[in-house]
Amino acid sequence: MSNIEFKKRKSIEQVEESTELAPKFDENGLIPVVTTDFSSGEVLMQGYMNENAFKQTISLGEAVYFSRSRKSLWHKGKTSGLVQKIREIRIDDDQDCVWLRVDVKGGASCHVGYRSCFYRSIPIDRDNSKVVLQFEEKEKVFDPKEVYGDTPNPTKL
Amino acid sequence: MSNIEFKKRKSIEQVEESTELAPKFDENGLIPVVTTDFSSGEVLMQGYMNENAFKQTISLGEAVYFSRSRKSLWHKGKTSGLVQKIREIRIDDDQDCVWLRVDVKGGASCHVGYRSCFYRSIPIDRDNSKVVLQFEEKEKVFDPKEVYGDTPNPTKL
Repeated sequence: MSNIEFKKRKSIEQVEESTELAPKFDENGLIPVVTTDFSSGEVLMQGYMNENAFKQTISLGEAVYFSRSRKSLWHKGKTSGLVQKIREIRIDDDQDCVWLRVDVKGGASCHVGYRSCFYRSIPIDRDNSKVVLQFEEKEKVFDPKEVYGDTPNPTKL
Repeated sequence: MSNIEFKKRKSIEQVEESTELAPKFDENGLIPVVTTDFSSGEVLMQGYMNENAFKQTISLGEAVYFSRSRKSLWHKGKTSGLVQKIREIRIDDDQDCVWLRVDVKGGASCHVGYRSCFYRSIPIDRDNSKVVLQFEEKEKVFDPKEVYGDTPNPTKL
């Protein structure tokens, strides 16, 4: 059990300019999290933490998210082995977003099998022609079927 | 007016493995956006786009967000001059998050005056002692009073 305490949000100055950790959780009790690879800077994924997940991340030094689809704590890598070791945790100006800088065991973060979840780009389209996604990663790092077996795909339509 | 079209979401395979842009907006019509500095990889900010903001970003090649506090389109830099020129747009596996890689005119992105909104870190705390934020940026890049004048601070408690 973590007994880390978050401070009450009292003033804009406290939130923006002080050393007090006073995070803001949204109406669902969640705070968005951006996770980047410590060495490459690449954005690996974007997820959410609730209060408990945030405290566990801080005390454990490994990324713990809140899974909105499963509605439960999600210690990333428990199933796949792709644990995210925290190198640095940052919080933004108004303390409603967290940035995790991590090393990923195995080098992949995406349930589809790619290194980053952001394996496709959207070309700038000044002529408003037809937008076609481009694959920026050519090969999967792992085979999701081997790693996850019959676990349901978390993607919702 | 942009006439870029988003595709209807039909299947997990279409969303994850195809070249069709079929983004998912949440119950408020928004999609989260992570914005990083193209050269340093640093996370500058996290924001949101609605459908219109996303289409304008794609066709303009500059970051256009939706401001939740002002409830309106927000062409970043229109007030401050700190326009974000898009170098690359990425979308994640289930197409419910956007990653913008940008060059920032003026080198700063944060309304508090720092280069990145994420100017403070949270130390890993295995002993569950008192968490104290650390400033990772020592100096502000600009004086927010000079740039924004009397514009209300967007931070909400």
